[in-house]
Amino acid sequence: MKYSALLTDLYELTMMQGYYLLGNNPQVSFDMFFRRNPFSGGYSIFAGLGDLIDTLEHFSFDQEAIDYLDSLGIFKKDFLDYLSNFHFSGNLYAMDEGTVIFPGEPIVRVEANLIEAQLIESILLNILNFQTLIATKTARVYNASRGGLILEFGLRRAQGWDGAVSASRAAYIGGAAATSNTLAGKLFNIPVKGTMAHSWVMAFPNELESFRSFAEIYPDNAILLIDTYDALGSGIENAVIVGKEMKKKGKSIGVRLDSGDLSYLSQKVRKRLDKEGLEDCTITVSNDLTEEIIHQLMSDGAPIDSWGVGTHLVTGGSEASLAGVYKLGAKEVDGKMVPTIKLSNNAEKTTNPGIKQVWRFFDADNMAIADLIALEEEQIAPGKAYRFYHPMYENAHFILDSYDTIKPLLKKKIEKGKVIAPKEGLPEIQQRVKDGLSKFDRTYKRIINPHIYKVSLTSALKKLKLHMIEESEEWTPENGK
Amino acid sequence: MKYSALLTDLYELTMMQGYYLLGNNPQVSFDMFFRRNPFSGGYSIFAGLGDLIDTLEHFSFDQEAIDYLDSLGIFKKDFLDYLSNFHFSGNLYAMDEGTVIFPGEPIVRVEANLIEAQLIESILLNILNFQTLIATKTARVYNASRGGLILEFGLRRAQGWDGAVSASRAAYIGGAAATSNTLAGKLFNIPVKGTMAHSWVMAFPNELESFRSFAEIYPDNAILLIDTYDALGSGIENAVIVGKEMKKKGKSIGVRLDSGDLSYLSQKVRKRLDKEGLEDCTITVSNDLTEEIIHQLMSDGAPIDSWGVGTHLVTGGSEASLAGVYKLGAKEVDGKMVPTIKLSNNAEKTTNPGIKQVWRFFDADNMAIADLIALEEEQIAPGKAYRFYHPMYENAHFILDSYDTIKPLLKKKIEKGKVIAPKEGLPEIQQRVKDGLSKFDRTYKRIINPHIYKVSLTSALKKLKLHMIEESEEWTPENGK
Repeated sequence: MKYSALLTDLYELTMMQGYYLLGNNPQVSFDMFFRRNPFSGGYSIFAGLGDLIDTLEHFSFDQEAIDYLDSLGIFKKDFLDYLSNFHFSGNLYAMDEGTVIFPGEPIVRVEANLIEAQLIESILLNILNFQTLIATKTARVYNASRGGLILEFGLRRAQGWDGAVSASRAAYIGGAAATSNTLAGKLFNIPVKGTMAHSWVMAFPNELESFRSFAEIYPDNAILLIDTYDALGSGIENAVIVGKEMKKKGKSIGVRLDSGDLSYLSQKVRKRLDKEGLEDCTITVSNDLTEEIIHQLMSDGAPIDSWGVGTHLVTGGSEASLAGVYKLGAKEVDGKMVPTIKLSNNAEKTTNPGIKQVWRFFDADNMAIADLIALEEEQIAPGKAYRFYHPMYENAHFILDSYDTIKPLLKKKIEKGKVIAPKEGLPEIQQRVKDGLSKFDRTYKRIINPHIYKVSLTSALKKLKLHMIEESEEWTPENGK
Repeated sequence: MKYSALLTDLYELTMMQGYYLLGNNPQVSFDMFFRRNPFSGGYSIFAGLGDLIDTLEHFSFDQEAIDYLDSLGIFKKDFLDYLSNFHFSGNLYAMDEGTVIFPGEPIVRVEANLIEAQLIESILLNILNFQTLIATKTARVYNASRGGLILEFGLRRAQGWDGAVSASRAAYIGGAAATSNTLAGKLFNIPVKGTMAHSWVMAFPNELESFRSFAEIYPDNAILLIDTYDALGSGIENAVIVGKEMKKKGKSIGVRLDSGDLSYLSQKVRKRLDKEGLEDCTITVSNDLTEEIIHQLMSDGAPIDSWGVGTHLVTGGSEASLAGVYKLGAKEVDGKMVPTIKLSNNAEKTTNPGIKQVWRFFDADNMAIADLIALEEEQIAPGKAYRFYHPMYENAHFILDSYDTIKPLLKKKIEKGKVIAPKEGLPEIQQRVKDGLSKFDRTYKRIINPHIYKVSLTSALKKLKLHMIEESEEWTPENGK
């Protein structure tokens, strides 16, 4: 199902048929980018690329799909024949999955004929928008916990089963240590973890028996949920009894708190455990956690070892979508690629024209200074001073001559339909996120009101953009443009 | 994949193994309910049941899944053998899909042995929480548009591909007329619709040619996007030219606005179209629409015919999850079902014990008055006066003796693992939503600050609940409970 090319908006298909019938099928270059970091944050984490590449490799129409399209009565036989042989044969450039990314810069560039580039728009945005949102959210949660153990517990509140499975993948990339979603564990080889539910405790004659039974069956992973009846009363006391019994067998237990004031309770519980010699007993917390709540708990000095994060991690919580877009940057005219621009009264929505590359500049300590969007044909080389132009404000710019290294971020991943990028494992991508973030000053990673990282245009790109804006005369009844 | 019983939280499986090894597998009754209407609304729309029934019918572990679980090193051979033969063999009671529902009332009741009831928790919540969220959102959007034409355009911003497909299903139930998601159209037989993208307009030498070409190819469905360059300049004028050409051929076009002030622009565009004799030309709008924005546009008297709603419709927007829960209501002790209760310092989180039914009371005009949660064994019959007790506040109640009819809402859908409910088509469910909502006073359907519909407990249920709260003595080190 995931590979069915029917996973597209109908208008892509009607537009494609239009191009097909009119013979209007030039080579084009589309950019995928977004205009604002989610969660009022200072950065985003690019995720979903592995799934996108896998999907593009298999995206096609089977006979059932063709029959369905035929039944709609709006597609011609010729075009349906074309679709039944469809496969993506273009180039895909993308940043490496797990790259730290910023608003305005092309994350992905598709070079293909117009028909193919159009068909893949919806699924490309669907995959990248969602996984980037969730990887970003998780990186924020991970940072707020100061590198704590993040357990993704979101299946029951996720948006459909793939909303859950894809979120598990992206959350792991963003820094989660494990998921509760067993299918995601199998599909992506992510560690799976879990504790117990209140219903376990209620399924026994009393709490002590429920704890003891669990610890006997799972001596190496007994995390006891202590708040079914009274966390600081029966809960912690019964956990202490079982903790001591297990200690005699050389095993450590853990406790979980799922309600109440987690800072107050965790401190009381820690004290009680330590007093009984159960310093090894870990404390896990859950209950609608967000990065803001975790940040606050850490600032309080709450002695929490691991964090079960569900709803907000897998849906984005108050921000449920990344508004990534896919815009035409260039098209073939008379055998030559020429830049295109989408104008808007809203300067933020006017696109950057042309076929572009993104360069990241680093200082001598290997810390990122700023990103520069250049035209592909520009030779950006270290050692030279560059002017960094603000993407919207006219004439606002600065000159960077003191830097150490530069790196191009967009790399060819698919060439003429053939995947050339090596398949990456998720641990590798997770590590890239951690390494990548370590190269940004902590002010960019602040949970609230972060420092804004600069993404600028080269002088050549800024000139091209201004030129194209000026050139697009106002429409008048006379020119009938 | 959707039917893989691995779509569960790992802790369900570890708890199941615990029950299995301990021989602790009584019959139980679980309730699914939620505590708050989403979007600060006055009602919710129950959706997802068809998908849930379908899933429960097929939910099982294939050999690959068993091998994966085996590889985790925490499951015993015996239990894995049990799982490899797993199928759901319990009873499922549920409200009809599309029923108007309220916080606190059981929407679904699962009667099964503890192991089976536990396994299906995560997938049941995943499906029902999400689809109920989206059907509710769509009903609000539909109401705000005063019964307008709602087009669901969310694929590119949805949470994974099933986040999109399931949302299309739920949105249709909630009142959407069509989806842009071609796969969802095929899977659920939902009408598919679309217009054109800015990239279509940009793919031609000029806007007029792009409009004309489209109308020639799709004379029966030419909705022209007029804001690529200048909506009130070139956009509307080129649309008027093509509209008049098509009118001569006996066809009507439409226009779409995707930016700017939609109230201002739609009024100007309507005037211009009417002046040119294009009264048949429809106006479609889009651009991050929510029910609040639509409500405002309708109050403004904006002459809008149809609404393309994407992001907010398929994700819930600012509220991305329904916090539905699944709680133990009764379990078998010595061959008899006895009520259970989950206590909490937060009165809202203390559950209603027992096996329950929900009754809806109607007045002589067939308008809903209030819902009453009763114990299953109570004989609720018309003609008698009933006390309606507040679910939390002690002693708060009213007496209802003036009503006309009553209806039980929970119905048996699966009996001993066998589906007994007839398979329903989505148009039938959509109609149930419309009929159901028409039986509620409009004050309950207000977008902001709605009238609160009453959901109460019978005298017997209230007594049982209070009795169980009192009976649960506080834990002390002495009783060691």
